Amino acid sequence: MLGSLGRNCRALGFRGRCAVITDSNVAPIFGGQVIESLRARGFEPALITVQAGERSKSLRVVTDVYHRLAEQRLERSSCVVALGGGVIGDLAGFAAATYLRGVHLVQVATTLVAQVDSSVGGKVGVNLSAGKNLVGAFFQPRLVICDLDTLRTLPEREFRSGLAEVIKYGVIHDTALFKLLERDLDRLLRREPGVLGPVVARCCAIKAKVVGQDETESGLRAILNFGHTIGHALEAVTGYRRLLHGEAIAIGQVAAAMLSARRNGLPAHEVERIKTLLARAGLPVSIRLGAGERERLFAAMRLDKKVTGGEVRFVLARRIGEVAWGQAVPDADLQAVLDELAHSA
Amino acid sequence: MLGSLGRNCRALGFRGRCAVITDSNVAPIFGGQVIESLRARGFEPALITVQAGERSKSLRVVTDVYHRLAEQRLERSSCVVALGGGVIGDLAGFAAATYLRGVHLVQVATTLVAQVDSSVGGKVGVNLSAGKNLVGAFFQPRLVICDLDTLRTLPEREFRSGLAEVIKYGVIHDTALFKLLERDLDRLLRREPGVLGPVVARCCAIKAKVVGQDETESGLRAILNFGHTIGHALEAVTGYRRLLHGEAIAIGQVAAAMLSARRNGLPAHEVERIKTLLARAGLPVSIRLGAGERERLFAAMRLDKKVTGGEVRFVLARRIGEVAWGQAVPDADLQAVLDELAHSA
Repeated sequence: MLGSLGRNCRALGFRGRCAVITDSNVAPIFGGQVIESLRARGFEPALITVQAGERSKSLRVVTDVYHRLAEQRLERSSCVVALGGGVIGDLAGFAAATYLRGVHLVQVATTLVAQVDSSVGGKVGVNLSAGKNLVGAFFQPRLVICDLDTLRTLPEREFRSGLAEVIKYGVIHDTALFKLLERDLDRLLRREPGVLGPVVARCCAIKAKVVGQDETESGLRAILNFGHTIGHALEAVTGYRRLLHGEAIAIGQVAAAMLSARRNGLPAHEVERIKTLLARAGLPVSIRLGAGERERLFAAMRLDKKVTGGEVRFVLARRIGEVAWGQAVPDADLQAVLDELAHSA
Repeated sequence: MLGSLGRNCRALGFRGRCAVITDSNVAPIFGGQVIESLRARGFEPALITVQAGERSKSLRVVTDVYHRLAEQRLERSSCVVALGGGVIGDLAGFAAATYLRGVHLVQVATTLVAQVDSSVGGKVGVNLSAGKNLVGAFFQPRLVICDLDTLRTLPEREFRSGLAEVIKYGVIHDTALFKLLERDLDRLLRREPGVLGPVVARCCAIKAKVVGQDETESGLRAILNFGHTIGHALEAVTGYRRLLHGEAIAIGQVAAAMLSARRNGLPAHEVERIKTLLARAGLPVSIRLGAGERERLFAAMRLDKKVTGGEVRFVLARRIGEVAWGQAVPDADLQAVLDELAHSA
């Protein structure tokens, strides 16, 4: 399926010079195949490789990428291929959205989190030291390729990190998916295509449906951020180093579930089901923060894009499969939940 | 009219914290009045001042601006006010387009070039060392304020620079405007409101009409770039220091007129009328480039956003008031025109 990239790009009318942006982990595995597929259809691709890891989602790296795109003399009708996981999709997507005020973007998602989440929906961006994804755009890809074969080489920790987003779709929208995950998680962890394929497809369908109704997040789309307000802040506080995105989001979902129990009537046994499923997927479900870290966590949350009138807003569950967005939460509840999180290890 | 900013922003539903981005020239003159107008309507504005000049339209400065916006804890529903000329409009506009994936943008244009051109139409962006406006977005302001009173303090050179864009509208679209300029240029140079007001309004109307038909420059909008392909390249070659934007565009228009005579049947006497009007406005109409500078000029033009299939495309006039876009020009004609330009001083 990766091999069809050149043909698919051609079918969209792209031609000539183009750029494949990828990272130091993905380039040696899939870089050659992707470049070859483009060359075979007459493209002149440049391979731009950045250091793997969240810290590449920076203005410094995007500046380097711009200079490479200028060297490659990309034109407005050219395409940028984002080959990799969420970091590459966000970084390359932002570069594509802004270079020459926008060139064509193709997402080739090679991680589970990218396939089920970040490659679909058009959110692109980079981090500031002050917080995650503070700079970005809404910019839809012309094509998204999710090749399940690329997940075979994905490191175990990365794969499990992606499951945090998969479980999220169950919590926010799809009780049946949540139950299927409870039943088939072990097969999913073995990456059996018979389970993995339908699960990835289901997640993409949910995301596309939600984004189709609210592209620029004026309302409904916010539900996709269940667990992300605290999760993003945890990533910022830990310098984007200690936790993978999915790991931070797993802790964030446990926190959001606990808040949902306090504020929104989510039954205690459903909090447990969410926590148990995340733990079974090998994801962290607790964290102990010092006083200084807590303070920085609150500061990072106040920079969240969903802050309204100075108040941080949360997505809270009523039950598994149904959430409400735009929920204000008193600091006292947040502090209590951070205490709970520290002791739920 | 500047004093109505707070009321107008309020009427658009903006509230709370906001940011006024301006430069070191404009801040001492209009900064206080603008901040006061916002405060009087309940806003909490931060004044962000950058160094005046084209060189502030950089990724380095936009990065500083992002950090200031984060410090000010701007929200998605907040507004950014671009207070200044074209550089500030482009820089602050790009920051507004990308911070939190987009906050509200208000353009308060205090130069002639901003009032007749850059504040309208939604093109925002910054320069790379490789070329001008290579990074940017299409992002429409929610409100544009053109207060003629702000032009009273505009330095003479800046005002004349703005006239290059005014004359351009005559060439590309409006024979009557061109004739009016030939007749009333002296009154315009004295900034008589009775001439200046209708001229600014006419230019905005032409720009809005063109952009309304083609926001993202897939066709017609390109006519607004008459004189800009060479003009932008001249700015890049001279390090954005020697020539103001309008001055580079004046030379670029003379070159484009000469190319139009060679390629598109523009009569020689109309080339002369264009050149004469620009010269009467006190704008440069010739330039002498060394061999190395010429080479860099060609390299910069090949990075132009309107390059298609590796070929630089030009907007060329058939007669004053009518142009065609997407015109390929052989290098030999360009070289000949650069010779002409060097000798037309």
